[in-house]
Amino acid sequence: MKLASPHTLKQIAALINCEFEGDENHVITGLNEIHMVEAGDIVFVDHPKYYDKALQSKATTIIINKNVECPQGKALLISDDPFRDYNKLVRHFYPINYSLKQISDTAKIGEGTVLMPGVYLGNNVTIGTNCVLHPNVIIYNDCVIGNNVIIHAGTVIGADAFYYKRRPEKLDKMISCGRVVIEDNVEIGANCTIDKGVSGDTLIGEGTKMDNLIMIAHDTHIGKRCQFAAQVAIAGVVTIGDNVILWGQAAIRSDVTLGDGAVLLGQSGLAENIPAGKTYFGSPASEARTKMKELAALKMLPDLLKKLNS
Amino acid sequence: MKLASPHTLKQIAALINCEFEGDENHVITGLNEIHMVEAGDIVFVDHPKYYDKALQSKATTIIINKNVECPQGKALLISDDPFRDYNKLVRHFYPINYSLKQISDTAKIGEGTVLMPGVYLGNNVTIGTNCVLHPNVIIYNDCVIGNNVIIHAGTVIGADAFYYKRRPEKLDKMISCGRVVIEDNVEIGANCTIDKGVSGDTLIGEGTKMDNLIMIAHDTHIGKRCQFAAQVAIAGVVTIGDNVILWGQAAIRSDVTLGDGAVLLGQSGLAENIPAGKTYFGSPASEARTKMKELAALKMLPDLLKKLNS
Amino acid sequence: MKLASPHTLKQIAALINCEFEGDENHVITGLNEIHMVEAGDIVFVDHPKYYDKALQSKATTIIINKNVECPQGKALLISDDPFRDYNKLVRHFYPINYSLKQISDTAKIGEGTVLMPGVYLGNNVTIGTNCVLHPNVIIYNDCVIGNNVIIHAGTVIGADAFYYKRRPEKLDKMISCGRVVIEDNVEIGANCTIDKGVSGDTLIGEGTKMDNLIMIAHDTHIGKRCQFAAQVAIAGVVTIGDNVILWGQAAIRSDVTLGDGAVLLGQSGLAENIPAGKTYFGSPASEARTKMKELAALKMLPDLLKKLNS
Repeated sequence: MKLASPHTLKQIAALINCEFEGDENHVITGLNEIHMVEAGDIVFVDHPKYYDKALQSKATTIIINKNVECPQGKALLISDDPFRDYNKLVRHFYPINYSLKQISDTAKIGEGTVLMPGVYLGNNVTIGTNCVLHPNVIIYNDCVIGNNVIIHAGTVIGADAFYYKRRPEKLDKMISCGRVVIEDNVEIGANCTIDKGVSGDTLIGEGTKMDNLIMIAHDTHIGKRCQFAAQVAIAGVVTIGDNVILWGQAAIRSDVTLGDGAVLLGQSGLAENIPAGKTYFGSPASEARTKMKELAALKMLPDLLKKLNS
Repeated sequence: MKLASPHTLKQIAALINCEFEGDENHVITGLNEIHMVEAGDIVFVDHPKYYDKALQSKATTIIINKNVECPQGKALLISDDPFRDYNKLVRHFYPINYSLKQISDTAKIGEGTVLMPGVYLGNNVTIGTNCVLHPNVIIYNDCVIGNNVIIHAGTVIGADAFYYKRRPEKLDKMISCGRVVIEDNVEIGANCTIDKGVSGDTLIGEGTKMDNLIMIAHDTHIGKRCQFAAQVAIAGVVTIGDNVILWGQAAIRSDVTLGDGAVLLGQSGLAENIPAGKTYFGSPASEARTKMKELAALKMLPDLLKKLNS
Repeated sequence: MKLASPHTLKQIAALINCEFEGDENHVITGLNEIHMVEAGDIVFVDHPKYYDKALQSKATTIIINKNVECPQGKALLISDDPFRDYNKLVRHFYPINYSLKQISDTAKIGEGTVLMPGVYLGNNVTIGTNCVLHPNVIIYNDCVIGNNVIIHAGTVIGADAFYYKRRPEKLDKMISCGRVVIEDNVEIGANCTIDKGVSGDTLIGEGTKMDNLIMIAHDTHIGKRCQFAAQVAIAGVVTIGDNVILWGQAAIRSDVTLGDGAVLLGQSGLAENIPAGKTYFGSPASEARTKMKELAALKMLPDLLKKLNS
C-alpha cells in the first residue's frame, strides 16, 4: 500500500509510540507485508529467523522487536510487538470504510457495463467498459476490474486475506489493505472467491477464464489466458505463468510458482514449483508420467506381497 | 429442541395417533435426534439394530416400531413409521415460518454491529455487538451469533441438515429444527455454508477462523481458536477440539473426533479420530509421518518391480 | 436449441456468409453442439479428427472447414472458421437478453411457491408449484424448475458452460444457449452451481438431493433419487443413473457414465464409467475393494523395502 502522502520516520514513530534508529527525516512512502516490499516501504518482522530477510529486503524501514544494527540508508522502528504496531499503522492509513449502499458513490463504472440486480460495489471500486456482473456479485473496496470482464452470479471479489498471527490467547488478524486487480477479457464463474492482497494486489491476468466455486487467496498472481476448472483452490502468494491449466479441484500451496504452460491435473495438491510446460499429478503432486507409473506399480503390489509371502 | 411447554405422553400420542406404553402423564419436554438426546426428550428408532441404543439413551420417550419392553421410568410410542411420526411432531412444534423481509421483525442486532447491503436475517436470529456481516450474508431462522464476529460476503448460516431416509419411492427428508451457534470473535470467510443442527446446535467455538468456501454440516461442534483453510468440508456430528488446524480441501467424515491441537493436512480425508496434538495426512488419512514414509516407498516401487521381474 | 421457426440452408448460409453444399431449401430446425444433436440440427466441426463423427451424427447440417463429400440427405456449410460461425448463429437466434429486474416479467411461478428475499429469476424462467427458493437463489434465463423443489440460499442455476476454444491469441468462448431443467421433488443445498447446457439441457432427475457447494457442469444428466454430499464436482456431459450416491468432494470427469445404484466414495476422482451397483474409490478411482487392497498393501511397502535392502 502506498501512503497518500510521504511521512517521516519521526511522524511514524509517534503514531506507534516507539523508539527509532535512523534519520528522523528518513522518508516513508508505503506500508507492505514482506512479500510485496519496495523502496520507501515499512515492513515488520518479529521473529529472529526472519530478521535478515526483512533487513535485507527492499523495504527501507523495518519495525523490529530487537535493537539490531541498522543497515546503511535504512531505518528501524523498535517495537515490543511489531505485528501489533504494523497493524496499527495499516488501520491509521487505511481506516475502516464500509459503504452501505449497493453501489458506492465512489465506484466508477465504464460505458457499456451491465450490473445485474443485487451487485454490490464497495468504495473506490473501478469497473471497465463492456463488463457483465451477474446477479449478487460482490466487489469489496478498492478492487479494479478491466474491460470486457464477465463475472458470474454470487462471486465475491476482494474479501480479506486469511492471515492471522497465533498468540496464546487468540488468533490476531493481519488487516488487509490490498486489492484485487482483474485484467481485460477475464471470465470468472459463479460463487468463486478471490481475496484481496494483504498489502499489495491479487492479480488475474488478461484473458484468463475460471469455472465455478474457485478460491484464489491473497497476493496470488495469475498470468494470461489460463484456464481453471471448478473448485480449484490456490493459496496465498502463488505465482502462475501464462496459459496454465488447472483441472478440477486441484490445489496449490502458498509461495509456489508454475511456469508458462504448466498443467496440474484434477484433484492434485501442489507443494512445489512446476517448470514451464510440465504436467503434474497427485497429492502431493509430482511429474505426471512418473506419478502414473507409481500408481500402475501400486496396482501390482498386492500380488507381489502375496508371492513374496508364499 | 425444547418444547415451548411440557406435554404429557397422552397428548403426544394423540398428535401422532398411536398407542403408547407408560404413564399417560409421563412428561415430555423436548424432541431430539439420537445424537443430541437429554432426559425429557422424545427420540425415534426404526431399525432393530439401533433399538438398544435408543432405549438406553438419555431420552425418556422413544417412538419405536415394535412393542418391546418399556425401560423403567421411560415411555414408548408404538408407531408403524417412527421416522414419519417424529417428523410430524417436529413440524407440529416447529411450524414452517419463513420471513419474507430482508431483516425479520424478530431479529435482534447488538450495538455497533454493521449489516452490509443484501444481508438476510431470518426469524429469531440473534446477533451480538460489534459484528460485521458483509454483503449477502444469509442467516436462517433461530441462529445465534456472538460478539465481534465477522462473516464475509455470500456465506449461508443455518441451511437445513442434509439428512434423508431412503425409502423405495423417495428420499424422505428429516425436518431440521436445530440452530447454528457462533461464539465471540469468530471470523468466517466468503461463500461458506454452515448447516443447522437436525434438532440441536451446530457450534463454532470462540475465536475460530475459517477461510472461504468451507462446508460445516449439521450438529458438528468446533472448539476454540481453530483455523480452517479454504474448501474444507466437515460432515455431520463431528467433534473438533481447540486449536485444531485443517489445511485446504481437507474433509472429515461424520461422527469423528479430533483432539485439541490436532492437524489435518491439505486434501486429506479423515475417517477416524485424531488424538490430541497429532498430525494426519492422506485419503484415507493416517498419522502423517507414517503416511509420508508410504509415499516415499511408493516412489521406489516401479524400480523394485523392474528388478524383481528381471 | 430449437429455432423459433424453421430456416432454409440458403437463409442460414446468408447469415454467416458462406458457401453451402446441398439443396438450398434443405430445412434447419435447430442448432446443437455435437453431444446433443438431433435430425434438423446444425452442428459444427473444425478438426479433421472429428469430421466423421460430425458427418455421421444425427445432425443434418454440418458447418465444416473442408469441402468434403456431403452425406446423403444432409447439407454442408463450408466455413473457414466453423466455431466462429456456429457462435454467430447462436447469437443470432439467441440474442443477449439480460433482465435487470429481480423477478423478470416473463418468469412463471407456480401456486404455493415461496420466493425468499433476494431471489433473482431471469427471462422465461419457469418454476412449478410449492417450491421454496431460499434467499439469494439466482436462476438464469430459460431454466425450468419442477414442483416441490427446494433450493437453498445462494445457489446459482444456469450460469454459462465453461467451454472455450483455445486460440493462439485468446480463449474463445462458446456461447451457451441451453437450459437447466430440474424435475419435481429435488432439493439443492446452499451455494451450489449448476451450469446450463451449451445448446441442450443440464438435467437433475426427480427426487434427487444435493448438499452444499456442489458443482454440476453443462449438459450433465442426473437420474432420479440420487444423493450427492457436499463439494461434489461433476464435469460436463456426464450421465448418471438413478439412486447413485456420491460422497463428499467426489469429482467426475466429462463424458463418463455411472450406472444405476453406483457409489463413488469421498474425494474420489472418476475418469471411467462405473457399472450399475458398483462402488469406486480413489483418485483416479477404481473398484473400491481392489483399491482398498492396494492401500493396505502400500502400508506394508516400507517394511518390505527395508527387508529387501537388508
